[in-house]
Amino acid sequence: MTDGERGLVDFRTEPARYKHWKLSFDGPVATLAMDVREDGGLRPGYELKLNSYDLGVDIELYDAVQRLRFEHPEVGAVVITSGKERIFCAGANIRMLSQSSHGWKVNFCKFTNETRNAIEEATGESRQVYLTAVNGPCAGGGYELALATDWIIMADDGNTAVSLPEVPLLAVLPGTGGLTRLVDKRRVRRDRADVFCTTEEGVKGQRAVEWGLVDEVVPRSRLAEVVSQRARELAARTDRPANARGLRLPPLERTIAGDAIRYSQVECALDRQRGIAEITVTAPTAPPPNDAEGVRAQGSTFWPLALARELDDLVLHLRTNEAEAGLWVFKTSGRADRVEAYDRLIASQQDDWLVREIRLYLKRTLKRLDVTSRSMVALVEPGSCFAGTLLELVLAADRSYMLAGARPGDSRPPATVRLTAMNFGAYPMPNGLARLASRHFSDAGRIEKLRARVGEDLDAKAAAESGLVTFTPDEIDWDDEVRIALEERAAFSPDALSGLEASLRFGGPETLESKIFGRLSAWQNWIFQRPNAVGPKGALVVYGTGERSEFDRRRV
Amino acid sequence: MTDGERGLVDFRTEPARYKHWKLSFDGPVATLAMDVREDGGLRPGYELKLNSYDLGVDIELYDAVQRLRFEHPEVGAVVITSGKERIFCAGANIRMLSQSSHGWKVNFCKFTNETRNAIEEATGESRQVYLTAVNGPCAGGGYELALATDWIIMADDGNTAVSLPEVPLLAVLPGTGGLTRLVDKRRVRRDRADVFCTTEEGVKGQRAVEWGLVDEVVPRSRLAEVVSQRARELAARTDRPANARGLRLPPLERTIAGDAIRYSQVECALDRQRGIAEITVTAPTAPPPNDAEGVRAQGSTFWPLALARELDDLVLHLRTNEAEAGLWVFKTSGRADRVEAYDRLIASQQDDWLVREIRLYLKRTLKRLDVTSRSMVALVEPGSCFAGTLLELVLAADRSYMLAGARPGDSRPPATVRLTAMNFGAYPMPNGLARLASRHFSDAGRIEKLRARVGEDLDAKAAAESGLVTFTPDEIDWDDEVRIALEERAAFSPDALSGLEASLRFGGPETLESKIFGRLSAWQNWIFQRPNAVGPKGALVVYGTGERSEFDRRRV
Repeated sequence: MTDGERGLVDFRTEPARYKHWKLSFDGPVATLAMDVREDGGLRPGYELKLNSYDLGVDIELYDAVQRLRFEHPEVGAVVITSGKERIFCAGANIRMLSQSSHGWKVNFCKFTNETRNAIEEATGESRQVYLTAVNGPCAGGGYELALATDWIIMADDGNTAVSLPEVPLLAVLPGTGGLTRLVDKRRVRRDRADVFCTTEEGVKGQRAVEWGLVDEVVPRSRLAEVVSQRARELAARTDRPANARGLRLPPLERTIAGDAIRYSQVECALDRQRGIAEITVTAPTAPPPNDAEGVRAQGSTFWPLALARELDDLVLHLRTNEAEAGLWVFKTSGRADRVEAYDRLIASQQDDWLVREIRLYLKRTLKRLDVTSRSMVALVEPGSCFAGTLLELVLAADRSYMLAGARPGDSRPPATVRLTAMNFGAYPMPNGLARLASRHFSDAGRIEKLRARVGEDLDAKAAAESGLVTFTPDEIDWDDEVRIALEERAAFSPDALSGLEASLRFGGPETLESKIFGRLSAWQNWIFQRPNAVGPKGALVVYGTGERSEFDRRRV
Repeated sequence: MTDGERGLVDFRTEPARYKHWKLSFDGPVATLAMDVREDGGLRPGYELKLNSYDLGVDIELYDAVQRLRFEHPEVGAVVITSGKERIFCAGANIRMLSQSSHGWKVNFCKFTNETRNAIEEATGESRQVYLTAVNGPCAGGGYELALATDWIIMADDGNTAVSLPEVPLLAVLPGTGGLTRLVDKRRVRRDRADVFCTTEEGVKGQRAVEWGLVDEVVPRSRLAEVVSQRARELAARTDRPANARGLRLPPLERTIAGDAIRYSQVECALDRQRGIAEITVTAPTAPPPNDAEGVRAQGSTFWPLALARELDDLVLHLRTNEAEAGLWVFKTSGRADRVEAYDRLIASQQDDWLVREIRLYLKRTLKRLDVTSRSMVALVEPGSCFAGTLLELVLAADRSYMLAGARPGDSRPPATVRLTAMNFGAYPMPNGLARLASRHFSDAGRIEKLRARVGEDLDAKAAAESGLVTFTPDEIDWDDEVRIALEERAAFSPDALSGLEASLRFGGPETLESKIFGRLSAWQNWIFQRPNAVGPKGALVVYGTGERSEFDRRRV
């Protein structure tokens, strides 16, 4: 990743290049030790003291969590701890936050939230259980990281406490899911949560256990021993294969040339004038291997894995480095039957640990789209291959256009879309529902009717009747209708669109994740705009200067 | 209500004083016709053209919805329509919004949301069904009002359409639940909702029915006839008594003297220096009547009804007129056995229409507390009567302190709290759970144990063990501990506290209401702070000036 203020942030890294984390292994237990280099900030202007973190630190964590799943099938438990003597983690770096733009703060919180959700998903679905050894003061984002793990062991040494001091100290909220996880995951009683979140020094010792803030406290002298024992117990319950070979994730190849970003299966053309990123995904050109062994043999070039990695990187790149591309247009190119064949392979080999990981990676990547603050439109045209996994792009889009019939002079058949088994639950949204189920409000009758059409080529009329696409103009109307829709979208207020999209995308039930991205993040975004936090006398701004913050006392 | 810019807003009104609504009756069907007086704005500086509304218009609507329940048991259906020839309603007045402070806008939206929720509650629980006759263009807040009703009939006349033009026109969100009701209540497909909410002119005719935006369209010439027929059909299904006498709600008596606000059962002392409103509720002095007939005889002086009206008015008053009182402290005074006796009466007469209305009014009033952006602390001391309905104040508070033992020289017995049947579901929160159930995360075992203790006097130790109160200092610690807690609270950023409280109060499930107050309102609050909406070139500010808005195109 680059350090320049104007440089691009690169999300690609690997353990050999980590500055801030140490990854070690002991049979089925891995340890991820946070040891932040003070002078290793992503941007100039702040020092990462007390194991505080910035986006660069979190990019490494994200990479480590990703690699542990793929490269270490033998690992059943991961211990998160601190590599420093006297501190676990002080949370997000405050100086970094106070000098960041509003957009940077919001995007930073989104990415860190996604990584914590991925830790919970690794625990629940990859059966690689995370636990935390709190070996020193654990504040703010540090405690929120612990909250994302399934078991928290804290040293009982008079110095070590967990805390969420954001409200009393900085006039902002814990921004990485802490409030939601306190009450909804750990079921801390709301009045105790209120006290905890307004107590700068936090809670330690037995009270932390009694209130449900941690799972156990042990004398400092026994911490390593107890953590090791718990980790082995948790690792013993995994269904991951002890003796399988991991799949190495080699550096992801990407070229950025002018306004074009290219990977092997994904490319993106930026139209900066119109604020549009056109993203095209290519279908596999060869048929899939026969089984999981064949998948292993292909390794990182296996099409669904390449797709997941490339789309993931592109989403992170565009979000962070291309804020003015407010509209993402999805296209696909290639043979739908190839896409469907890969979907069938993934479905049939779903019990294989590696195939499961690949599906989960696609799931996480598609979920990033749901919470991305960009308008998304899918264009379904002749030559496209919106089938199964790629049809999820249509279902994730805010709206879609499908050309009815062919264009004059185009010998290709009219566009079709195709459902596969993967559209019925393999890739749930943050609200816990498949995109198809969420779209049709879990209407079981309707979903069953759609299931009966799996594998069928649905033309524009059939796709519209099935509720899969929004509009189906013919070639006479297509150009104008699509152009006007894109131009209109680009003319609306970006903020109003973000609020609109966040409100319409998640009908139906709520989960921990949807609450974090909906309720909590929206409040935090609001607070990140308020003078009481970010004005000249705001708490975030004056922190550490010796000055006192001054608040407008009117409640809103 | 007063008109002065600095004057207090008064929420008390009655039909004879309405400027903007006409209420008429035809047997079991009432009609509430909106006919806004252009020059009748609550504040100077804007004209209420095209049946647009401000807080004053909505105060009358709130009053009408309230009175229809109590004063008109014979009414089973209420038609909302427009009293003007060429317009149904243009929504909230834009000039009013653009010249209002951030706090005013947010508080205005909160109140209007509560009234729309009350319309849905009247339909569902009072069995007084609301329907809408859309007899002209119906935009923004106008359509959101229609969305709160159970059946929407629209004239098919080429001129009449429903629309939510906020995003394209004003760069803000529909602020009265429209987005949530579109996808979660009416189950409009998300891509269609996206198109609808970005189409300034809205949708009319058959497409509006097909997309689920309205329930039927009829020729203009037949509108009155069809509406009348539907209203009678819906009214016929009510369980309200056709021949009962309504209970008239006389003007609510209140005195404001200096920093004291007094009603018959509720009083409030403002400590402006410390930003505290101390609210004391008095228990009934006499035993309750024997039955529903006795309730009718007491009329508006029946203690639970008086309590509901007075607390309701106080909450609205403080929210709107006392923004700097950021901390509300609840106290009670009187005999707990009296409170419990009234609770028993309400529980035993729950099938009586009037007793049901009184319970629902208490429920709505207590729900206002849950969504109020003020910190709340309950103080349980000797002489208090936190039993049943009044114990809800402890459970609604962000935290509570209960004095263990007596004070020297105080001959009264130590404080106790008491559960009644009313704590187990009579007053659900916006998330659909009783406060007790929400507090204990629907832990059925725990709730059943508490149910076994109904009617018992629980001292500080028992109340703490039962998880009903937060802290139980003795008389040596009480003064310091409470004082420091209140002072600390008053020193924190009001905005951070609002976000914190909104995040911690609603563990567990989400409902339409909790989504509106959590997700949607938080996004709207954010947008209401963004320069793209409220900056010098923001869309809300330049609207109607002929100038074009200018947007910062970066997505956040």
